[in-house]
Amino acid sequence: MMATKTDISTLGEFGLIRELTKGFENRNTSTVRGIGDDAAVIGPIHAAVAGAKNPDAAATGATEGEDHLLLTTDMLLEGVDFDLVYFPLKHLGYKAVVGGINDIYAMNGTPRQITVSIGASARFAVEDLIELYEGVRVACEEYGVDLVGGDTGASVNGLAISVTALGTATHARITYRNGAQLNDLICITGDLGAAYMGLHLLEREKRALAGVDNPQPDFGGMEYLLERQLRPRARRDIIEALEQADLVPTSMIDLSDGLASDLLHICRSSSCGARIYLERIPIARQTYAMAEQLNADPVVAALNGGDDHELLFTVPLARQEEVARLGGVEIIGHIVRPEAGAALVTPDGSEIALTAPGHK
Amino acid sequence: MMATKTDISTLGEFGLIRELTKGFENRNTSTVRGIGDDAAVIGPIHAAVAGAKNPDAAATGATEGEDHLLLTTDMLLEGVDFDLVYFPLKHLGYKAVVGGINDIYAMNGTPRQITVSIGASARFAVEDLIELYEGVRVACEEYGVDLVGGDTGASVNGLAISVTALGTATHARITYRNGAQLNDLICITGDLGAAYMGLHLLEREKRALAGVDNPQPDFGGMEYLLERQLRPRARRDIIEALEQADLVPTSMIDLSDGLASDLLHICRSSSCGARIYLERIPIARQTYAMAEQLNADPVVAALNGGDDHELLFTVPLARQEEVARLGGVEIIGHIVRPEAGAALVTPDGSEIALTAPGHK
Repeated sequence: MMATKTDISTLGEFGLIRELTKGFENRNTSTVRGIGDDAAVIGPIHAAVAGAKNPDAAATGATEGEDHLLLTTDMLLEGVDFDLVYFPLKHLGYKAVVGGINDIYAMNGTPRQITVSIGASARFAVEDLIELYEGVRVACEEYGVDLVGGDTGASVNGLAISVTALGTATHARITYRNGAQLNDLICITGDLGAAYMGLHLLEREKRALAGVDNPQPDFGGMEYLLERQLRPRARRDIIEALEQADLVPTSMIDLSDGLASDLLHICRSSSCGARIYLERIPIARQTYAMAEQLNADPVVAALNGGDDHELLFTVPLARQEEVARLGGVEIIGHIVRPEAGAALVTPDGSEIALTAPGHK
Repeated sequence: MMATKTDISTLGEFGLIRELTKGFENRNTSTVRGIGDDAAVIGPIHAAVAGAKNPDAAATGATEGEDHLLLTTDMLLEGVDFDLVYFPLKHLGYKAVVGGINDIYAMNGTPRQITVSIGASARFAVEDLIELYEGVRVACEEYGVDLVGGDTGASVNGLAISVTALGTATHARITYRNGAQLNDLICITGDLGAAYMGLHLLEREKRALAGVDNPQPDFGGMEYLLERQLRPRARRDIIEALEQADLVPTSMIDLSDGLASDLLHICRSSSCGARIYLERIPIARQTYAMAEQLNADPVVAALNGGDDHELLFTVPLARQEEVARLGGVEIIGHIVRPEAGAALVTPDGSEIALTAPGHK
């Protein structure tokens, strides 16, 4: 922790993860996929043991029925990931769970169990934590997930929350980031940038009302943005619609870091390029309105804002009509050869290379 | 977060957990055991789905082979759970993993996969985190565990670490906290109080050397205490020995909060009382020596110090000889009727009721 060392920001988040985990080897045959996707994939449990004698056990394990497990974990820290000045504790508990289970959906699986750990400083009372857990409970109920464990302790400063989600998946339906193919259609659910604009609205009102007694923030007409920031939904509906349509995406990722960053993940994992079209990116009317008020670019909010909790996925070109019938899904572009890179195409036909802070 | 609320400390850690989780219901039949043990128990994966049609699927699922999963999670926060003034980052990474996998062993299972999340403030450099992950890597290698995921982010203050461990277990061998029976023998592995005394030694040297350039702490003769605090081992050897002896404990718990607290967990879960004998509690020579230097009571260190990372378990009286043959296990008492409560018996025959801060 002395000088002459390398600042973490020089590597970017994903470069840092690669650096930290490069010396690790997997030993259990049940580890189908480790680091590098929305969730780890664990093969049939028997394979973990059988594998000791037969290294192919995981590969030859049952491939029908929901026999694979998905495991993902997220940590949220006060002051970095949330601000309790405007984030109600109940919503925070709900959102923390949604973040975890949306990672399970992003693998095309079903969330089953979660654990929630909290570290809270002395400024939190029992009633505060009950409020937080009420949000956890509501999310568990809505998504049919069981709270099965956790850890409760003290913290020196603020609140820390860690959520782990465990899900199940059918082997043949598991969708990784690395399966996108040339000419596949790039699809997204919902609209983008609204959660980011909601955050800016909340920050603006926080600044405006700092020190005011009994503050009355002005959110008139912007409730949609607040809901997207404070109470995002996990896209179970889309996962169920995909299954009913017998459609398995070739790749999928949870839109949490912004469209640019998450599409770059798919391109890197799938060794491909991408073209997305500016005019096809779904942006809500209120996102435009808020961007105008704040003198911000709504497209930048969509590309780099993050926190959308929507799904980004690819499907073969031949499935275009079925995708259109899903409802709530927009086709925003297609996969191209890797040499072409990932770019946004503007209405005049010019291309802007996609970049994101975490990718260096 | 205003006044007139209930301070968290009034409930105790375990009372708080009960309060926070009392409104939760389990919906997935694969959830065999949720909150309230060292790890959650998840039944055969197929049962999660079959259960939708047949609620008994989990109960009637396969009971041979390692077909059950164990899931546990722990969060460590700087300033509460560790002090980087004397805790080397590599050891911290190692210890964080050991804490997680020892919870899997405490269920009589085999750890398979872990996730590690970190939140680090700007004072940490890439090299610091590499050191931390080197400790994680060594622990993974020693215990045959795969690092399969995690989350890497920023923190406002200090370092936060969250470890989730996933393990497998044979249904018939899973050992809960709630199976202790009248007259069962109470057994512990290793010796107690050393990690706590190691912590006090490190704290003493930290105070003595505060502000000194190039400090040379004096640990002469107390290396064992430091090792117990800084590099605890998970007790895989005992779990393997139990299996070889075809011995399934009736109850078991990881000794992390101190013998008193952890024995009270077994008594509460198993609805029983306990008598343990002062002169049978294994305390290392160096623990006695350090306690003398610090004018502290080594028995208090054993009962309430915590951080021992040993196993506390019960076996039927009839298995006494087999337990003795295991090696490294001490029989320190026996289970009594619930009305008799849990107490420590001193050499003169008087009884001291066991209490622990987390239990209120």
